[in-house]
Amino acid sequence: MRIVLIGAGNLATQLGKALVKRSKHEVLQIYSHTVESARTLADQLQVAYTTSIDDVVKDAELYIVALKDAVLSEVIPELVKGRNKKAIFVHTAGSIPSRIWQGYACRYGVFYPLQTFSKQRDVLFSEIPIFIEAVDKTTEEQLNSFASSLLCRKVYTVNSEQRCRLHMAAVFACNFSNYLYTISERILIDSGLPFEVMYPLIDETSAKIHRLSPHLAQTGPAVRYDENVIGKHLKLLADYPEWKKLYELITKNIHHDQLRFNQDKGTRV
Amino acid sequence: MRIVLIGAGNLATQLGKALVKRSKHEVLQIYSHTVESARTLADQLQVAYTTSIDDVVKDAELYIVALKDAVLSEVIPELVKGRNKKAIFVHTAGSIPSRIWQGYACRYGVFYPLQTFSKQRDVLFSEIPIFIEAVDKTTEEQLNSFASSLLCRKVYTVNSEQRCRLHMAAVFACNFSNYLYTISERILIDSGLPFEVMYPLIDETSAKIHRLSPHLAQTGPAVRYDENVIGKHLKLLADYPEWKKLYELITKNIHHDQLRFNQDKGTRV
Repeated sequence: MRIVLIGAGNLATQLGKALVKRSKHEVLQIYSHTVESARTLADQLQVAYTTSIDDVVKDAELYIVALKDAVLSEVIPELVKGRNKKAIFVHTAGSIPSRIWQGYACRYGVFYPLQTFSKQRDVLFSEIPIFIEAVDKTTEEQLNSFASSLLCRKVYTVNSEQRCRLHMAAVFACNFSNYLYTISERILIDSGLPFEVMYPLIDETSAKIHRLSPHLAQTGPAVRYDENVIGKHLKLLADYPEWKKLYELITKNIHHDQLRFNQDKGTRV
Repeated sequence: MRIVLIGAGNLATQLGKALVKRSKHEVLQIYSHTVESARTLADQLQVAYTTSIDDVVKDAELYIVALKDAVLSEVIPELVKGRNKKAIFVHTAGSIPSRIWQGYACRYGVFYPLQTFSKQRDVLFSEIPIFIEAVDKTTEEQLNSFASSLLCRKVYTVNSEQRCRLHMAAVFACNFSNYLYTISERILIDSGLPFEVMYPLIDETSAKIHRLSPHLAQTGPAVRYDENVIGKHLKLLADYPEWKKLYELITKNIHHDQLRFNQDKGTRV
């Protein structure tokens, strides 16, 4: 397929690399509002770029919009206007419904890869679950075969609400976990210890839940509600009032869930 | 060394296996208050066990106490009384100071492996950072060579306060991250999706921070304070009021940290 990438951020960069280096598709052009981002990605992929939505190629077969959610509703009408009526238009956002395209494009949908992307760090699309939504069956099939052409092995069809819930689940498991790592790093540095001592524990915590439901994998002072240890930690957290609040809230939640689980034992999944 | 393991929980089980299967030390006996736990571990390791602290072998060279923090102060006086005066006594707790042994044992310390342990899941001690504290230099050296004999490659000496902060950092990075995984699992199940779709994202999130400080790796709607997406998630979280509170608190923290970081850019580590 002849593809235009609208966006030059983390996801667009990784998707662009996968398309150019590991697929038979042709990337015609990169669009980004920011000239530096557009040029950097276009240079990497050795394709053309533009910073003006009017100059986006008119006859591509697939337009992939990987922009910040906040600008989508502004860019979409301008993008679709005057472009190939038979083209497929997709966005890549977890929490934006597919109906954002309604009234503009005829053939549209969503191509949502569930992963955290950085420009510097390459990822294999073959390992990433892809969530597709499409306006009709033909478009859905074409998006499915597009995913297969990227070697994606896990492709799911979901509706907009499911995808929004999925995104929310990802925010907890990824963005928020990463924030807990930043707290951990700060505490270690402030204690004169390198953050790398935490790597094996972080690795094991994430590896463990492939085999064991995280509910069953839960350990630590909160599970047994060890007031002595919890009290010591809260005392040390006096210097970090925001993290203290967070410590208290999560500890309380873990403890309550554990109590509920023990009450329900045997009936709960 | 001739060793007695006091405890038959997750850590004692994994330490016992490593000692019996991958070291030259001799495990003389397992003690656990609970006969079932004592027998299960003793059978696995093919060693003797007791459920009475009075019957613990008197002439071991190293007593490793891996019990719940809450019972330590009760067990320690009974354990040390009448036992080999030259023996080394250690506990394995993150947040219990080494002075808990003071007035009871002459040679004592702490042997704290920074990892999350399950009975079912074997771990390699060669990959686990070990934090040692000892009452004197000779004891410290002996604990160091004990760690080396388990093939531990990263052995650190820390004082009790550092260890408590380390434990607290681990609670954030491990116990609390795992709790976020349980939330994620529940949201997915309630949306008709299997938790396994989250594995690649969880793996990448934890792998990423080996190369990139978690502060720089932070992504998601909270970083850009995308009110549209955040609002949608909070709406969906109406059914889970406790998790809604948590979502709001972490989002606010990520956003504030990001603002602070942008203000300090260039000066902050």
